[in-house]
Amino acid sequence: MSRPRGPAEAIVGGDRRALARAITAVESGDPSADPLLRAIFPRTGRIPIVGLTGPLGVGKSSLVNLLVGQLRSAGKTVGVVAVDPSSPFSGGSVLGDRIRLERRADDDGVFFRSMASRGAVGGLAASTRDVARLLEAAGFDLVLVETVGSGQVDVTIREVATTRIVVLVPHLGDEVQTLKAGLFEIADVFCINKSDLPGSETAERHLAELASLGPGPDGWRARIVRTSAVQPFGLPELWKAVEAHEQFLAASPDHPAELRRRLSEEIVGRVRELVASEIAERLESDPDLRKLLDRVVARQLDPRSAADRLVPRGRA
Amino acid sequence: MSRPRGPAEAIVGGDRRALARAITAVESGDPSADPLLRAIFPRTGRIPIVGLTGPLGVGKSSLVNLLVGQLRSAGKTVGVVAVDPSSPFSGGSVLGDRIRLERRADDDGVFFRSMASRGAVGGLAASTRDVARLLEAAGFDLVLVETVGSGQVDVTIREVATTRIVVLVPHLGDEVQTLKAGLFEIADVFCINKSDLPGSETAERHLAELASLGPGPDGWRARIVRTSAVQPFGLPELWKAVEAHEQFLAASPDHPAELRRRLSEEIVGRVRELVASEIAERLESDPDLRKLLDRVVARQLDPRSAADRLVPRGRA
Repeated sequence: MSRPRGPAEAIVGGDRRALARAITAVESGDPSADPLLRAIFPRTGRIPIVGLTGPLGVGKSSLVNLLVGQLRSAGKTVGVVAVDPSSPFSGGSVLGDRIRLERRADDDGVFFRSMASRGAVGGLAASTRDVARLLEAAGFDLVLVETVGSGQVDVTIREVATTRIVVLVPHLGDEVQTLKAGLFEIADVFCINKSDLPGSETAERHLAELASLGPGPDGWRARIVRTSAVQPFGLPELWKAVEAHEQFLAASPDHPAELRRRLSEEIVGRVRELVASEIAERLESDPDLRKLLDRVVARQLDPRSAADRLVPRGRA
Repeated sequence: MSRPRGPAEAIVGGDRRALARAITAVESGDPSADPLLRAIFPRTGRIPIVGLTGPLGVGKSSLVNLLVGQLRSAGKTVGVVAVDPSSPFSGGSVLGDRIRLERRADDDGVFFRSMASRGAVGGLAASTRDVARLLEAAGFDLVLVETVGSGQVDVTIREVATTRIVVLVPHLGDEVQTLKAGLFEIADVFCINKSDLPGSETAERHLAELASLGPGPDGWRARIVRTSAVQPFGLPELWKAVEAHEQFLAASPDHPAELRRRLSEEIVGRVRELVASEIAERLESDPDLRKLLDRVVARQLDPRSAADRLVPRGRA
C-alpha cells in the first residue's frame, strides 16, 4: 500500500497534471498553492531562468519555439512561461489572439504555460517567480519566460530571470525605442531578430556602440546576436551567449548579494501585500476603522494621519 | 508685526514659489511635504480634476494648451500637471524632449508643472494626487492632468481624475489599439484629436458602436468629441462633455461610495508603503532579521514563512 502523495510529491515525481493545477492556483492567487510553494522552495534556485522581452511584433514567440526545439535536441527539458500582461481594468489579456507555441503534446520534456496577472498577491513578478519554481521542482533543466516589453513585465523579467534577452528588430520606430529605453538597461543579451531583413548590420553596430560604453554595474558586457526565425539562423549563437552569461553569474562575486537582494524584496513584497489586504478588509469590517475612514471622507482627518494610526507595530 | 507664515498659509495665500517648492518636495518623496499635505487636506476634494490620457503622438499637449487658453478666457484658473513616466530602471524621463506647454509667464491664473515618478512613496498616482491637492489649496478652479497612456499612468488617471478624457487619433495602428485596450474602459469622454485628418467620422462611428454597448458600471455613457488643434475646432464641445460628466458625478448616488473607496485605497497604499520600508530597513539593520534572511538565502526557510513571521500585529 502506497500512501497518497501530496501535490509537492506529485509534481516532483513528474505528474504534469498536478503541475498544471498548481500553476493555475498560483495564477489565480488561490491560497491553496501556498503549502506547496513552501514545500518546494528548498529544491529551487539552481536552474537558469531565461527571460525574453521586447516590444510586440519582434517575433519572440517564434524565437522561443526555435530555442525550445534546439534545447530539446540537445537533451534539455524546458519549461516555458508566456506572460500576458492583463489590462489593469478588465483583466483581459493583451495577447489573447497571439499564435501560441506549437504544441508538443507527445514530448514530456517541454511544458508550456501562458499566464495572466490577475489575482496574484504581489503581482506578475511574484506569480511568475512562483511558476518558475514549480517548473524547477518538476525537474525541468531550465525555464524560458517570454513577456511583452512594458513597464510591469520589464520588472518581472528584471526580478525573476537569471539571464535577460532583449529582442529587437532592425528597424524600430523612434517612439518605440524611446518607450522601451528601460529595456536597454536590463539586457544581458541583445537579440536582433528578423536579421534576414536589411538593416540588421546597422542595428548591430548601433547597439554595439551603446554596449561599448562599458559593462553594466555587475561587470557583464551585454552581447549582441543576430537571429532569424525564417531562414533560420543565429539560434545556437543566441544560446551560447545565454550560457556565457550563466557562467559569468556562477563565477561573479556579486551574485550572492543579488540573490539575497531578490529574496529580501520578495519577503518585503509579501509582507506588504499581507498587511495591505488585512487593512483593506478591516476598513470595511471593523467598526472602529470604518469610523476612522468616515472622518477622512468628511475631511476631518487626513489620509496620512489615518495611515499612521493603522501602521501595525513591528515584531519578530 | 505679522508672524511668519508656514508653507500651507503661503500656498493658500497665493505664493507661487511656495507652491513650486512643495510640488518639488512631493515629487522627490521628501517627507518635509508631509505636514503641509496634512494641513491642506480639509481644503481639498471639491474641484474637477480632469485627466487626459492616450498614446504618444495623439497631440495631448497641444490639446491641453488650447484648453487652458479657452478656460482662461472663461475666467477659470487652471493648474496643469504633466506626468512623465520615468523608466523604472534609470529614473529617466520618457518625455524629456517633448515640446512643453507654451509659457504663460505673465498669467498668475495658470500653473504648469511637469512631474516624474521617482521617489514618491506609493508611486505616481499618490504623488499626482498630492500635487492636485496642492493646486486646489492654492486656489485653482480646476486641475488638468496629462499623461501618456501606459499601465502605470492609466492607474494614475483612474485613481486621481474626476473626469477622464481618452485622446485618440483617427488612424491608430492595430497594435497600439490592442495595447491600449485598458484606455477604453476608463474613458468618460473620448476625444478624437487630429479630426482635420480624413477618417475621423469613421473613427467616431467605430467608437460610438463600442460606447453603444451601454453605460459603464457607474451609469455614465462615454461621450465622443472630435477635435483639431490645427484649425482648431471641437474644444468648446470637449469642455462641455467634461462639464456634463462633472454634473453627472455631482448628482450620482454612487459617487460618495467611489470617493470613499479612493480614500480607503489611499490609506491602505500608505500603510503598505510605510510597513514595506520599515521591514526592508530592518532586514538590513536588525541582526535577528538578517539571520532570518540568511536562512532564506540558504533555502532553509521559505520566503512565505519568513514573511509570516514579519507581518506585524494590527492595532487601532
